[in-house]
Amino acid sequence: MEVISHSNQMRRTADALRASGKKIALVPTMGYLHDGHVSLIRCARKQADVVIVSLFVNPLQFGPNEDFTTYPRDFDRDAALMEGAGVDIVFAPMVEDMYPPGFQTSVVVHHVTKNLCGLSRPGHFEGVTTVVAKLFLCTKPHLAVFGEKDFQQLVVIQRMVKDLGFDIQIIAAPIVREPDGLAMSSRNAYLNLEERKAAVCLSQSLFEAQKLFTDGQRTAALLIDAARKRIAAEPLARIDYIKICDTETLEDIVTITRDAVMAIAVFIGKARLIDNIVLHV
Amino acid sequence: MEVISHSNQMRRTADALRASGKKIALVPTMGYLHDGHVSLIRCARKQADVVIVSLFVNPLQFGPNEDFTTYPRDFDRDAALMEGAGVDIVFAPMVEDMYPPGFQTSVVVHHVTKNLCGLSRPGHFEGVTTVVAKLFLCTKPHLAVFGEKDFQQLVVIQRMVKDLGFDIQIIAAPIVREPDGLAMSSRNAYLNLEERKAAVCLSQSLFEAQKLFTDGQRTAALLIDAARKRIAAEPLARIDYIKICDTETLEDIVTITRDAVMAIAVFIGKARLIDNIVLHV
Repeated sequence: MEVISHSNQMRRTADALRASGKKIALVPTMGYLHDGHVSLIRCARKQADVVIVSLFVNPLQFGPNEDFTTYPRDFDRDAALMEGAGVDIVFAPMVEDMYPPGFQTSVVVHHVTKNLCGLSRPGHFEGVTTVVAKLFLCTKPHLAVFGEKDFQQLVVIQRMVKDLGFDIQIIAAPIVREPDGLAMSSRNAYLNLEERKAAVCLSQSLFEAQKLFTDGQRTAALLIDAARKRIAAEPLARIDYIKICDTETLEDIVTITRDAVMAIAVFIGKARLIDNIVLHV
Repeated sequence: MEVISHSNQMRRTADALRASGKKIALVPTMGYLHDGHVSLIRCARKQADVVIVSLFVNPLQFGPNEDFTTYPRDFDRDAALMEGAGVDIVFAPMVEDMYPPGFQTSVVVHHVTKNLCGLSRPGHFEGVTTVVAKLFLCTKPHLAVFGEKDFQQLVVIQRMVKDLGFDIQIIAAPIVREPDGLAMSSRNAYLNLEERKAAVCLSQSLFEAQKLFTDGQRTAALLIDAARKRIAAEPLARIDYIKICDTETLEDIVTITRDAVMAIAVFIGKARLIDNIVLHV
């Protein structure tokens, strides 16, 4: 496993791989890897000759009052995990390499960034699309794998790729959950034991709503109410949003007549956790 | 000479060229070509195996009260000229191919777009960077040639390429002028005979200022005053701006102690013409 920390070296390595006919997959991460990331890497491993994992805590996608400085980091642990998962190249640039003095360019996706996390985290998706565009141009992949846990991010990236014409196949990998249902996330590390137990309310609220949906309920407000009550019953949880949206436009849906995503964001202790479930009509 | 009108076909053609080891140059244009464009093509021809000229009047870079619909177009004339100049591929997409329904992504360069034409044409450079990013991703060039007549555009593109990490060499080609000094521009076609004569005031005002500079004048305001007087003497001309700026940041300069660009925009009849000259210290 090769570790590359400079973007120029990454570009030259990607050029050489492409020139020798290798198919490159990129798995972009912010590190502090868990089994969710491993499933992305496995998915990439199946479809490409060379798997590159980028490891970069991107300051652009954190708001001024968010957890950029405290975001968990452990390179040695990540490296062992990636080695075990068959990663070929780790691209781990420094902030100064990605954003040198004078940097002033953004990639902006205008509409699908507005709802959900876009409401709570202004500027977040502009940071995401800008860094992902840079990672794409640097690692030159044929395909890239993103997790469905960050459902809006996935939709935003798909939109950017289509709109700008990146010649990269975007693969969505399903959410990986803990045995009790909690979606895996690096931010779960923020939870103490009590908060960790409380955090199960996210997935349970989604599963309960899904059961109502399967039983025939199509009114979004009623599904949202059911989820809201389940989370409200947990004193350590504070709801940021619970919404049901069109899976492509991410606009709010009143009555579910087409595929929809039920997406939630909940504060528990210092952590802001998100989860979602797709409701297939 | 091959004409390609679909971006997917352009991508596949570019892939094949790259796979066979060809060096690709792109010359982005809005068509209605003149000797200025021919000089860009010659410059590209010298440095690459395959010269692609894109021909696309980009609606995104025109304001609502600007000349998108009346911008001069003549594909047959352009094709003959390109054939003669040794162009290999013309990429001439339709607006619907570049911006299909649902399109919602922009590339934004934040600071160097603010002054000069950015003041008079809000949104213009966002349109330019967005389309150029798309053209780069579609034609996959090793190098691209831009004219110095659009000096700010050149600086903005260089900034975008550096910031996002496009692996493309940007080559600047000097302004080509008519015998009387008028910078070549597709928009010169808007001028009637009288206006055409008046238009010489742009380059003359720059040359006069340059003479003062060469004679030792380093105070930007005095050079600007001299140019302003020359243009004000022309009744058909109306000044949009005359400025002297740092060649890299494009911020206004008070005293010229480093390389500066003197840039002007002047309305003559229906045409808004621009010109510039670099003042080397």
